[in-house]
Amino acid sequence: MEQKAIKYSDKVQRWGAWEISIQGPDCGNPFTEQWIKGTFSGKSEEKTVKGFYDGEGTYRLRFMPSFEGTYKFRVETGFGISEEGTFETLPAEAGNHGPVRVADTYHFAYEDGTPYYSVGTTCYVWELQSDSRIRDTLENLKKARFNKIRFCIFPKHYAYNLTDPRSFPYEGTPMDCSVLTADNFNDYDEKSEGNHWDFTRFNPEHFRHIEACIQKVMELGIEADIIVMHPYDRWGFSCMSKEEDDLYWRYVLARFSAYRNVWWSLANEYDLMEHKTLKDWERYARIICEEDPYSHLRSIHNCHGFYDYRRPWITHCSIQRQDPYLSAENVAQWREIYRKPVVLDEICYEGNLQFGWGNISGRELVRRFWEAFLRGGYAGHGETLLNPEEELWWSHGGKLRGESWKRFGFLYDIISKVPGHGIAPYDLKWDCVCGVPESEWRRAVKSWYLIYYGFTCPAFKEFYFDDTTEFRVEVIDTWNMTIEDRGTAKGKFRVELPGREYMAVRLTQKKEGAGRK
Amino acid sequence: MEQKAIKYSDKVQRWGAWEISIQGPDCGNPFTEQWIKGTFSGKSEEKTVKGFYDGEGTYRLRFMPSFEGTYKFRVETGFGISEEGTFETLPAEAGNHGPVRVADTYHFAYEDGTPYYSVGTTCYVWELQSDSRIRDTLENLKKARFNKIRFCIFPKHYAYNLTDPRSFPYEGTPMDCSVLTADNFNDYDEKSEGNHWDFTRFNPEHFRHIEACIQKVMELGIEADIIVMHPYDRWGFSCMSKEEDDLYWRYVLARFSAYRNVWWSLANEYDLMEHKTLKDWERYARIICEEDPYSHLRSIHNCHGFYDYRRPWITHCSIQRQDPYLSAENVAQWREIYRKPVVLDEICYEGNLQFGWGNISGRELVRRFWEAFLRGGYAGHGETLLNPEEELWWSHGGKLRGESWKRFGFLYDIISKVPGHGIAPYDLKWDCVCGVPESEWRRAVKSWYLIYYGFTCPAFKEFYFDDTTEFRVEVIDTWNMTIEDRGTAKGKFRVELPGREYMAVRLTQKKEGAGRK
Repeated sequence: MEQKAIKYSDKVQRWGAWEISIQGPDCGNPFTEQWIKGTFSGKSEEKTVKGFYDGEGTYRLRFMPSFEGTYKFRVETGFGISEEGTFETLPAEAGNHGPVRVADTYHFAYEDGTPYYSVGTTCYVWELQSDSRIRDTLENLKKARFNKIRFCIFPKHYAYNLTDPRSFPYEGTPMDCSVLTADNFNDYDEKSEGNHWDFTRFNPEHFRHIEACIQKVMELGIEADIIVMHPYDRWGFSCMSKEEDDLYWRYVLARFSAYRNVWWSLANEYDLMEHKTLKDWERYARIICEEDPYSHLRSIHNCHGFYDYRRPWITHCSIQRQDPYLSAENVAQWREIYRKPVVLDEICYEGNLQFGWGNISGRELVRRFWEAFLRGGYAGHGETLLNPEEELWWSHGGKLRGESWKRFGFLYDIISKVPGHGIAPYDLKWDCVCGVPESEWRRAVKSWYLIYYGFTCPAFKEFYFDDTTEFRVEVIDTWNMTIEDRGTAKGKFRVELPGREYMAVRLTQKKEGAGRK
Repeated sequence: MEQKAIKYSDKVQRWGAWEISIQGPDCGNPFTEQWIKGTFSGKSEEKTVKGFYDGEGTYRLRFMPSFEGTYKFRVETGFGISEEGTFETLPAEAGNHGPVRVADTYHFAYEDGTPYYSVGTTCYVWELQSDSRIRDTLENLKKARFNKIRFCIFPKHYAYNLTDPRSFPYEGTPMDCSVLTADNFNDYDEKSEGNHWDFTRFNPEHFRHIEACIQKVMELGIEADIIVMHPYDRWGFSCMSKEEDDLYWRYVLARFSAYRNVWWSLANEYDLMEHKTLKDWERYARIICEEDPYSHLRSIHNCHGFYDYRRPWITHCSIQRQDPYLSAENVAQWREIYRKPVVLDEICYEGNLQFGWGNISGRELVRRFWEAFLRGGYAGHGETLLNPEEELWWSHGGKLRGESWKRFGFLYDIISKVPGHGIAPYDLKWDCVCGVPESEWRRAVKSWYLIYYGFTCPAFKEFYFDDTTEFRVEVIDTWNMTIEDRGTAKGKFRVELPGREYMAVRLTQKKEGAGRK
């Protein structure tokens, strides 16, 4: 059966990925020698978008419309074929709120205005595992109610990651991984010996599979925080030339940008990538800004030192904590310095690894989440619990085995009730952390206080705001996930607590609007 | 029965308190108008010492000989009576090692060379409680194996401390304490209204009782870290005049200096004493240096900011942590800055108070102890667990009710086996704390390593020092207080761990002297 030369749909939902495919030449190197681009115009926007070669003579181009209504398009190619036409952008379907944007300086909202409270997890190469493990991951992501997942395009070479991935991003053959052991794998770090790749010819199947995975998490309401580069490499992907890097970046941007749930993480532990310089990172950033027509969120993740999050192209902080003791406790400071959303993507994983970045208890990780959220930041999860299958969520996805993941939905439900887009830290006392609605800074008495006591174990706490404002008082056990109604109180009042760790008190103004000044 | 005019003993043990009493005038104000002093000469020392008026016409003078053998003395008074004679200083009795001194820059040893590892506790006014509570305190101090106790000469006015003490330091009458409530007591802070004291007339009974308590803890092998001033005051003791302060200091020094277990803490939270200036503190320090003939240890305890521990008169840091999250974790830094022993006298107490300085779990306090000791410092305990009797160890002494105190003897036994005077922090890895003997810094491979994993939960750890040194490997559960022998290992070796918090690994060179380089 002959393939139709040009295919596209005549409708798409708002923030959906409209796609056109055109059959073209298969000779030479279409990745470097050919091009496809399109211009789109609707009532409220006009955009020029690049497409990509998808192998076997197929060229594709995708476009994400940001508005409803009729769009005209004109697609051109380097091989003389072009196409014009229109399509209809229908209203967004249920669960589709558009891409996530920065809102109220420190927070996020979907483009339709719905607040987005990031509760992320890290599964570096979950999508490069077997089909059955990928299914497990998706099920567990949903069960845990994560709404962001960080993962890599390149495969991962590291302890517990010595086997080959299901596919590679380039045409060619990898080094023999059977020589690797837990003791010698470091000797192969960021080297390319024994590999034979053509860095000008992508393996479209690798990228098609990742696109399918991006869409699968999208269907679950999960943002795909895509790590485009990383140092955990034995194949030479971390030490390609400038030109090869740029070709890769442009290909990734052409393929993935039209998916509304994409975030760009330029790198994981950028400062460990010894072949890259600050100039390189700034060049990649420029390429993203030029070639992502939708301005998806952009950040970069550190090992030792933060990237300068004040750079204008960075939309939010993507932090790995630098200190083994302090992480979430610094959120308020980081907000002041960077004036952007503070996302703690790595604050030690729940686990029992030999490594200090992967061996805290579930209790401690949940504590760090609460400390981060109550200070107006967002935290990320990861799990590194050893098991006979060596299936470690942090890298492989699969099954969740810990204790912390069960408790983030409870936190999310509480956070999502704060008026406005999120929480601001408020200095009620030095020995607890208190969150108030970001939008209520000007009020003398806020409508909502959430006070968290962390590892301290008070048997009671006393409060005084004013003589007249009436509060509903609730005692929250953040570990056991209970909320106890303690009735209402005003003036000076005392709240009895159980004298154990991980407790919080929520105070909500009884009469909406009371206390405004 | 008539009192003998002059009494003294013809013998005393080394570092004991030899005492002479002389009957003299009872008229006028003997505290300010009279004096008594003595000169002492033995084979190895010559000292001039001041005595004090003890009420009812009795003048006393005490002397602590630092050497064995015959001492000549000559005691003179302002009222024309003098006495000359000799006494024998016998060898120190069992358990008497002399006063504690600084050893090896960061550590302590008794004057006879025995190492002293400080495991302190705080019971601010234990000695001003009832006789039966004092007995309880002494029993519990012994049971918990504390070897230092911090307490005040002046009574304490604070939450949970609203009743009057068993005695006052001055002649006069206190304000009516029945007006005090948990809500209003702050209004009386550092004020003197309603009190009627003669600050030139001490109450000898108050001081005699404290002396008896100093001697009781001495018999238990416990150092008395005496807090001479503090801000928790409703009687005006914190806002006396310069002259009254100096008279007080000289009286305290004359009375207590001859007890070998005395340490001088100039103040608790000196920076909260609003009536005192830095000049005042330096003046008190000068008085101590002039009037304490034995150079007992001297420090001063902070609330917000440290006193400048580099001042030459300060023998060691007496730290209250400034950060709710970090305390013991900073010991290595503080050692570098101050080059003196670092004693963490206040790092939050085990308890459930409403106050952030008194509501951590026993587990967290024990963790802080291990973090401090393994970094070459020393930590102090306190307990603030509410109970129906409102008997809070931190202030009243009495019974220990927590979980941490049971675990310090275990720590002590481990620390006391380190060769030399104590531990130095050694940077094996960023994600654990490792202590080695202070005396072995020059060795490439030390004879003893103690590695503590704190709140991390590794399932195993790997080690490599060199190919030849053989180590005895022990796994220590610091909370459950077990030590598991794992045999010997050399070269690269792996130690299995239970994947839970509060574990440590002790590595001891099998052959003493091997590995010296």
